[in-house]
Amino acid sequence: MFLRVLVAPSGFKESLSVEAVGAAISGGIRRVLPEACVAAVPLVDGGEGTARTLAAATGGRLVPVPVTGPTGAAVPSHIAVLGGAGPPTAVVEMAAAAGLALVPDDARDPGRTTTYGVGELIRAALDQGCRRIVVGCGDSGTCDGGAGALTALGARVLDADGRQVPVGGSGLLRARTLELDGLDVRLTGTEIFVACNPYNLLTGEGGVARTFGPQKGATPAQVEELASAMDHWATLLERRCGTDVRLTPGGGASGGLGAGLAAALGARLLPRFDILPGYAELDAQLALADLVITAEGALDHQTPRGKIPAEVARRAKRQGKQVIALAGIIGHGAAQTHPVGIDAYASILSGPMSHREAMDSTAALLSDAAEQALRMVLVGTRISEPPPPVGHTFPPVAGSQPATTAG
Amino acid sequence: MFLRVLVAPSGFKESLSVEAVGAAISGGIRRVLPEACVAAVPLVDGGEGTARTLAAATGGRLVPVPVTGPTGAAVPSHIAVLGGAGPPTAVVEMAAAAGLALVPDDARDPGRTTTYGVGELIRAALDQGCRRIVVGCGDSGTCDGGAGALTALGARVLDADGRQVPVGGSGLLRARTLELDGLDVRLTGTEIFVACNPYNLLTGEGGVARTFGPQKGATPAQVEELASAMDHWATLLERRCGTDVRLTPGGGASGGLGAGLAAALGARLLPRFDILPGYAELDAQLALADLVITAEGALDHQTPRGKIPAEVARRAKRQGKQVIALAGIIGHGAAQTHPVGIDAYASILSGPMSHREAMDSTAALLSDAAEQALRMVLVGTRISEPPPPVGHTFPPVAGSQPATTAG
Repeated sequence: MFLRVLVAPSGFKESLSVEAVGAAISGGIRRVLPEACVAAVPLVDGGEGTARTLAAATGGRLVPVPVTGPTGAAVPSHIAVLGGAGPPTAVVEMAAAAGLALVPDDARDPGRTTTYGVGELIRAALDQGCRRIVVGCGDSGTCDGGAGALTALGARVLDADGRQVPVGGSGLLRARTLELDGLDVRLTGTEIFVACNPYNLLTGEGGVARTFGPQKGATPAQVEELASAMDHWATLLERRCGTDVRLTPGGGASGGLGAGLAAALGARLLPRFDILPGYAELDAQLALADLVITAEGALDHQTPRGKIPAEVARRAKRQGKQVIALAGIIGHGAAQTHPVGIDAYASILSGPMSHREAMDSTAALLSDAAEQALRMVLVGTRISEPPPPVGHTFPPVAGSQPATTAG
Repeated sequence: MFLRVLVAPSGFKESLSVEAVGAAISGGIRRVLPEACVAAVPLVDGGEGTARTLAAATGGRLVPVPVTGPTGAAVPSHIAVLGGAGPPTAVVEMAAAAGLALVPDDARDPGRTTTYGVGELIRAALDQGCRRIVVGCGDSGTCDGGAGALTALGARVLDADGRQVPVGGSGLLRARTLELDGLDVRLTGTEIFVACNPYNLLTGEGGVARTFGPQKGATPAQVEELASAMDHWATLLERRCGTDVRLTPGGGASGGLGAGLAAALGARLLPRFDILPGYAELDAQLALADLVITAEGALDHQTPRGKIPAEVARRAKRQGKQVIALAGIIGHGAAQTHPVGIDAYASILSGPMSHREAMDSTAALLSDAAEQALRMVLVGTRISEPPPPVGHTFPPVAGSQPATTAG
């Protein structure tokens, strides 16, 4: 059987790049169907690995940029300058300057971490002559409402005595004034798009502090303090910029970075899958595919809320395509991915093993799982084949076709 | 789509009975296709659980029998008296009297464990009036060549001084005479079938001591001692009974129990899948099935060497059916199951977890894995559907069918 398979995965966080995930899945498929047409589209969601993947996928380049990391220590970082036609465009991956992975376990206090380095990356993009900047959100280790990034770009967040407030989300509770006069003048005339998950809001019950604070290391008391800080920050932004970003879709992206950039820089918050490169290519490839295989580290109740496999499934279903998802962990609520278009899923694990063991052999496990998933699909195609004719048969006789009857 | 699914699993050792495995898989299938026709045939291989399953499946009964366990301590055991037509038939499950699970970890020395209790079970079968006895092998904790079982039935294994040799395989090295005059007279006129894996041989490089000794707890030195003991025992059996059982297929079953019963009692060693009840029913159900799902605790290089999933696949392929296997562990060499007819397989694990965690949730994991495997198969059936007609179509017009042309 000739089959056209589209491999459209996410990377496996802290384990395997999206390119390697695609290669592993493609390899498993070719083991079963060496003659299958297998296309791989590496997809990013704005988080870890986004800049690197997009630089490679567009034939662009990665520009190294040393920045102030989330805890204040210097960290090596980078931006992508995309290749291809169109105006010079930079991709700033916030996780590369302020990601949770850059915060040591014993420093995980989102009340104190900063997005200062993200502002430095934006400045580097301006230095590269880019007047279109896409800021990728996701995997952040901060909750400072973007105050750090704005500060790096020349803004000042001052307390009642006119002094710069302490770094981090908690410090915002002391803020009384936001000064934007010192902002980098090049920002005028620069389009900034923030690629975010529109489900993330800055304030309220579903706001960023309460939803993501705990996984960034905040205690329950710190979560409530940060929630107050975000409320207060929203008030300050509204007073200075005239924009209410409290419940703007995507305003909560990356610890409120979205809200800060939107209010103070006029950045546009866009659903990440509408703005990040790769998804137009995905749609084009989907049209050709018989079967789509997507993948992510974990498939669970969060998947339908804006994760890559759900987006792939949504787009695939628009074109009537079948979708299989592979994941390291099939977690709580994974069945909620069926209504959004994932027809079947499988864990890649081959038996009892630790998280570490699974991470160390992700590529091999992915290949094997892709092979077996395809084998199951082929079982289905064979079941569907019409049964062989019973009894004697004759070849068609010339002239016995029905006459075509025009209506 | 209307699908007829045959569920033909093995039990999961130390975790879930074959009936529960069948129910879990059937439940997962019905979640996807409530209207599917799902039949389950519980299969046994002669090892742990065989008597219990066959008593239930045939409408027979389980008869409790207290016996001498493999280490000499008393253990509660049982035989099955099968229901149904035909001569009264007992199933003696050797593992129920001399299984490895009955040997505490600190007593795992196959040079000292005995099949005495198996002889007691055979006597109990005679007491029940059964003149046809099926001895199920597998999961043994012994390597005494069946000497213990024969002793329980009235034989004597004597040393050079005419004294009974010590219990266990090592003791056989001292044996000089085998006396069978005292055997239970009811054995004459009783048919004994040993349901065994024909790959298991008594002696030689692939003999029972070298192949199974280590997993029963023997050190390398003990393995060699036991191999010598089995050679010596074969010589003694040949001298007394006139039968050379050294390389008889199945002679190595259950630590050489097969060889002892064959030589001394005229028992017939038969491939377990030819003699154990259930496989005729399997063949009948296979004829009706569109898809077969089998399962076992582990799927690996040993599977093709006489395990239940391989037997199911072999029989299914005879009838051109598609076979999927689910397993707790997809082990080394699992791909060797494809050539014997397993079209696709999957581990039931949903993510990183310990062996213990997997054992504790086997039923739920099996249901989920069966559901997803079926979903993958259905993806295949949908891919195979003819594409919807392009452009305008007309309903068939009466009279436009081709004339039937007789040859």
